[in-house]
Amino acid sequence: MISVGIVGGTGYTGVELLRLLLRHPNVQVNVLTSRTEDGRRVDDMFPSLRGHTTLKYSDLKIDELKKCDVVFFATPHGVAMKHAEELLASNTKIIDLAADFRLKNLTEFEKWYGMQHACPDILTGAVYGLSELNREQIKQAKVVGNPGCYPTTVQLGLAPLFKQTATLVKPESIIIDAKSGVSGAGRKANLGMIYSENADNFKAYGVAGHRHHPEIVEALENISGQQGVFDHILFVPHLVPMIRGMLSTIYIDLTDEGEHVDLQTLYEQFYADETFVDVMPANSSPETRSVRGANQLRIALYKPQPKKLIVLSVQDNLVKGAAGQAVQNMNLMFGFAEDAGLKGIGLLP
Amino acid sequence: MISVGIVGGTGYTGVELLRLLLRHPNVQVNVLTSRTEDGRRVDDMFPSLRGHTTLKYSDLKIDELKKCDVVFFATPHGVAMKHAEELLASNTKIIDLAADFRLKNLTEFEKWYGMQHACPDILTGAVYGLSELNREQIKQAKVVGNPGCYPTTVQLGLAPLFKQTATLVKPESIIIDAKSGVSGAGRKANLGMIYSENADNFKAYGVAGHRHHPEIVEALENISGQQGVFDHILFVPHLVPMIRGMLSTIYIDLTDEGEHVDLQTLYEQFYADETFVDVMPANSSPETRSVRGANQLRIALYKPQPKKLIVLSVQDNLVKGAAGQAVQNMNLMFGFAEDAGLKGIGLLP
Amino acid sequence: MISVGIVGGTGYTGVELLRLLLRHPNVQVNVLTSRTEDGRRVDDMFPSLRGHTTLKYSDLKIDELKKCDVVFFATPHGVAMKHAEELLASNTKIIDLAADFRLKNLTEFEKWYGMQHACPDILTGAVYGLSELNREQIKQAKVVGNPGCYPTTVQLGLAPLFKQTATLVKPESIIIDAKSGVSGAGRKANLGMIYSENADNFKAYGVAGHRHHPEIVEALENISGQQGVFDHILFVPHLVPMIRGMLSTIYIDLTDEGEHVDLQTLYEQFYADETFVDVMPANSSPETRSVRGANQLRIALYKPQPKKLIVLSVQDNLVKGAAGQAVQNMNLMFGFAEDAGLKGIGLLP
Amino acid sequence: MISVGIVGGTGYTGVELLRLLLRHPNVQVNVLTSRTEDGRRVDDMFPSLRGHTTLKYSDLKIDELKKCDVVFFATPHGVAMKHAEELLASNTKIIDLAADFRLKNLTEFEKWYGMQHACPDILTGAVYGLSELNREQIKQAKVVGNPGCYPTTVQLGLAPLFKQTATLVKPESIIIDAKSGVSGAGRKANLGMIYSENADNFKAYGVAGHRHHPEIVEALENISGQQGVFDHILFVPHLVPMIRGMLSTIYIDLTDEGEHVDLQTLYEQFYADETFVDVMPANSSPETRSVRGANQLRIALYKPQPKKLIVLSVQDNLVKGAAGQAVQNMNLMFGFAEDAGLKGIGLLP
Repeated sequence: MISVGIVGGTGYTGVELLRLLLRHPNVQVNVLTSRTEDGRRVDDMFPSLRGHTTLKYSDLKIDELKKCDVVFFATPHGVAMKHAEELLASNTKIIDLAADFRLKNLTEFEKWYGMQHACPDILTGAVYGLSELNREQIKQAKVVGNPGCYPTTVQLGLAPLFKQTATLVKPESIIIDAKSGVSGAGRKANLGMIYSENADNFKAYGVAGHRHHPEIVEALENISGQQGVFDHILFVPHLVPMIRGMLSTIYIDLTDEGEHVDLQTLYEQFYADETFVDVMPANSSPETRSVRGANQLRIALYKPQPKKLIVLSVQDNLVKGAAGQAVQNMNLMFGFAEDAGLKGIGLLP
Repeated sequence: MISVGIVGGTGYTGVELLRLLLRHPNVQVNVLTSRTEDGRRVDDMFPSLRGHTTLKYSDLKIDELKKCDVVFFATPHGVAMKHAEELLASNTKIIDLAADFRLKNLTEFEKWYGMQHACPDILTGAVYGLSELNREQIKQAKVVGNPGCYPTTVQLGLAPLFKQTATLVKPESIIIDAKSGVSGAGRKANLGMIYSENADNFKAYGVAGHRHHPEIVEALENISGQQGVFDHILFVPHLVPMIRGMLSTIYIDLTDEGEHVDLQTLYEQFYADETFVDVMPANSSPETRSVRGANQLRIALYKPQPKKLIVLSVQDNLVKGAAGQAVQNMNLMFGFAEDAGLKGIGLLP
Repeated sequence: MISVGIVGGTGYTGVELLRLLLRHPNVQVNVLTSRTEDGRRVDDMFPSLRGHTTLKYSDLKIDELKKCDVVFFATPHGVAMKHAEELLASNTKIIDLAADFRLKNLTEFEKWYGMQHACPDILTGAVYGLSELNREQIKQAKVVGNPGCYPTTVQLGLAPLFKQTATLVKPESIIIDAKSGVSGAGRKANLGMIYSENADNFKAYGVAGHRHHPEIVEALENISGQQGVFDHILFVPHLVPMIRGMLSTIYIDLTDEGEHVDLQTLYEQFYADETFVDVMPANSSPETRSVRGANQLRIALYKPQPKKLIVLSVQDNLVKGAAGQAVQNMNLMFGFAEDAGLKGIGLLP
Repeated sequence: MISVGIVGGTGYTGVELLRLLLRHPNVQVNVLTSRTEDGRRVDDMFPSLRGHTTLKYSDLKIDELKKCDVVFFATPHGVAMKHAEELLASNTKIIDLAADFRLKNLTEFEKWYGMQHACPDILTGAVYGLSELNREQIKQAKVVGNPGCYPTTVQLGLAPLFKQTATLVKPESIIIDAKSGVSGAGRKANLGMIYSENADNFKAYGVAGHRHHPEIVEALENISGQQGVFDHILFVPHLVPMIRGMLSTIYIDLTDEGEHVDLQTLYEQFYADETFVDVMPANSSPETRSVRGANQLRIALYKPQPKKLIVLSVQDNLVKGAAGQAVQNMNLMFGFAEDAGLKGIGLLP
């Protein structure tokens, strides 16, 4: 039984962490912080938790967090990096669900997040928490930067293509047309997020540039070992009038060699031992609802035209795209069963 | 062609007024104010208006408003009453879509709206703008208090029962179980209004007390000529995960006399000449989508048990429940055809 | 480990049973029938189950069902009663999620379900499966009629009032204004159920009469021990544009005695030991999303006017209103922990 | 005043035609057919029309249709072509909202629609009804094949690029990632279309091939005058949980020449005189709700990477994508003002 702290427990990733961790066989959540709700019971704010916990929010007190074995930061960008040094000094591990430990490139971090990094040295040693791709490093990690939601769909959707000695695809051709439910934007009092602005509506956003673009580029460089070839890939996110769910439609040009490989088999073999990545049969249409509430990503492949590959990649943005993957990473870091606390089946309908 | 001003053009009733008035044959919208968007084109904020107007927002300048024949206040409560005296002095008529000129009872106004009334004398002369019930006074009015959305469904849903010499119902038995789409709460950056808090969810609110309760009580007293008997009626609003639409399910005990009257015929005759009130055939189920975008209220009656009447009353909260009725009132005040600018058919599906 | 069969595995209650039972520590689902999908893997139809089961649908073969310890019928009305005798002869217990074993009154059954009952003798011995109210009989039952979704909200919402020696309320005054998500209508190719007919829309239905009315009447008679006084209560269901969730707003007149009782305390004490019934604090607003996917019913009480009580009662219609309560009943029937397989926390947002 | 007939008045395009035509200053709808609803008033099926028409459905009687000046076919594919010859013989014009007169290539028609064409000669003379691009031919047409919804967004989104003497783009690079509201699938009792299967869900469909692919190819060939270069473009439609609305995100590689052209200006000039095509300012994000219920298509351009163009193109699939464009075509065919009956402003929110 390890002791867990959650910093930032009033947002959607915070309450999702609680939903998962309160049922986790190996952990006890002992600290839950909020800047605004000190002293309030969490089940008063989120009645779905009534009967499952008596936890109260508290102000962030570093001494309390230092008693934890691991602290999750479900906060805005820039919070985790301020506390990392002190927590590490107490042997407390860190899983940041924001972007403080995702990008290794400091210039990109500063450009996209509008702040200087507070602890570049710690960042250097941090591990990027895409569980399936970086499993061994995560097991050893003291600081994990949990991936962005969109980048998770892209990396798991493309990794099998780049983990080959052969060159199967033209990396510069990648186009990611991504769609997300509204909960991805968090729980904020923001005019653009209110119900009547989003229901029965569809739009693109961030077309001119989005923070997840550099994260995707850096991640694909790491996966493929190729630098520079992904700089100009296209990434266009869209907003879907649904709460949870994310689907990326990824278009890639195949090389001659890639055209003649059985990609369906290649993907199935690549993920054969993965509990949380599901390569669906040919001609499947993965739906976001098939993973609602579950730590699961599903992939389907199509080759509708010569030398063109389409990858469909779906997940619940709050689970495999955030809190679920964070718990998966915790399981790896502490030697628990990788699926501990993550066995829930998606809610359909 | 009259000159129209709209104060508060960034909310949902403001943009709905524009949608209707820009197509109205007898008016020209010349002034559109906003506290925050001075100088911005309205079609930049609301692209649905692109191609239909070149209007810009301006700060509220009373001298500009005084040039108008009529000014609509699509503002928070308390704005119209501050400017009423000056506007009336210039012979500019006023239609307030907020609550400043709804309640005649100042004590109730102060209790529910948390402010003192700025011009009780003007309030005394103001007309309550339920078009069908107060048509003749509205024609003469200089200041109209446009009814609240819920009260409109209740008054039109019950008026035929109380406009009889016979006593058909027990007034104290009235229970109003009302349901509204989310746009009724306006266009505000409010955490409780964001998409992920409201989609795929249903709840009651304001059960312990709601501002529309005193308005309903006062209105029913005026309609029936009976004082005191409505004080303890029940009114429970609920929030429906849809943008527009409002349905009130109203339960009433019938008297012996009421039990033997043909209420279906009574309602049909009462509204026989009304363009905007539709008494549906027996056993109909009025749906909110049947009035989406239309200045229409539909009613259906049921008598499933002895001496019990159920009235279903639906409207689009932004049209017959707000902007549409305001335009209908303007038409009455200026002698235009009552349906001028209001002939649009509901959007279904 | 008991062996479980599910008859009718292609509907929403069927797939919800699977979601719960595949994670249940004491059961193995061995048979899953479908009239149309014989031989098809269930996870092909419901990809949310991929990775969790290899079960296939089969035609209903009574010999296979007779090997089970218990069979759930997630079928249309009229199926369970045809197979009950044979199953009981093999000592196989039955939990029917349809209406075959709900109403004891055969006349009402035939009137509302349009068929003769196939086994009135078995019906006589069947137990009505409202777990909290009939726990002891359920433990002994061989046949359980799982309650309708609306009646569950009403019974749990009102039971504390009628399980008293004092007369707290006027039973004939009860008005149930109920609202349900669309999944309550099942998974059927029906024009009235398609997306564009239901989204962004709200309506009442079944106002002239609904099958759950006689079930509610009979249940309240059993709870209160009073016959005849509930015959004319009002029950009006409405359809909410959401998938899951049900809220009943119940209006009741209090007696003088009821007016002076602390009903909040009475409810809290009545349900003090119940895991799945949550009496919320005064002035709470129970939301359907707070129980999404969870076997939980939440209640809130209001007394906004003299001698008037309002009870708000919410549940997930597919869980506590159907499959979850069925599993709860199975747990009682087989002596498992009552919450086995039912510990999941609601999905919010 | 011309006399209009509508064949197939129970679907969504049928009722949308009525919404528009009942307010059109130059037409009278005299015939409305249905295979199943003969004798029923249309406002009984669609209560949104109550108060606006007394029309009844009738069986399809060719003699009644022959009295009309124009007949709209809002039917499944294959109906219009059966009646075309007889109607033309009576000088009745035809606007088909299905696919009978879209594709000139008979092989493609038979492949995708699974039927032989009934009147290839008439097809030869039919005009493809993309109003803005084929205006002059439409004015002379006796038979118009109204474009598919997706192809409308693509053609108007790309036409300015191909109507140049210079070669601005690489035609074979086109990728169309399209998203549609559910009403695009029509009004049918289909399991896959029910609310609980589509709400809070997102998926791709038809990835391996969709009927609108050959229509897009043929249309782009006609626009560009280039044959064969579009055969392998990608078109992937997705289903959005909303009723109305369609957005296509189109990706295209620019040539060196295209890279140096001011495409924003080129588009603005190309559509400068078009009422129903709106080129939004740079960096705009067109939303489907901005055209809800309006005969309007909005376009925005982005160049986020070198030599890459992204075109966003939105419309209401039932209006500019179907019934609205059909009315626009009728206006052209009969010399009415092109915007007659089409002046409605989009419903926002």
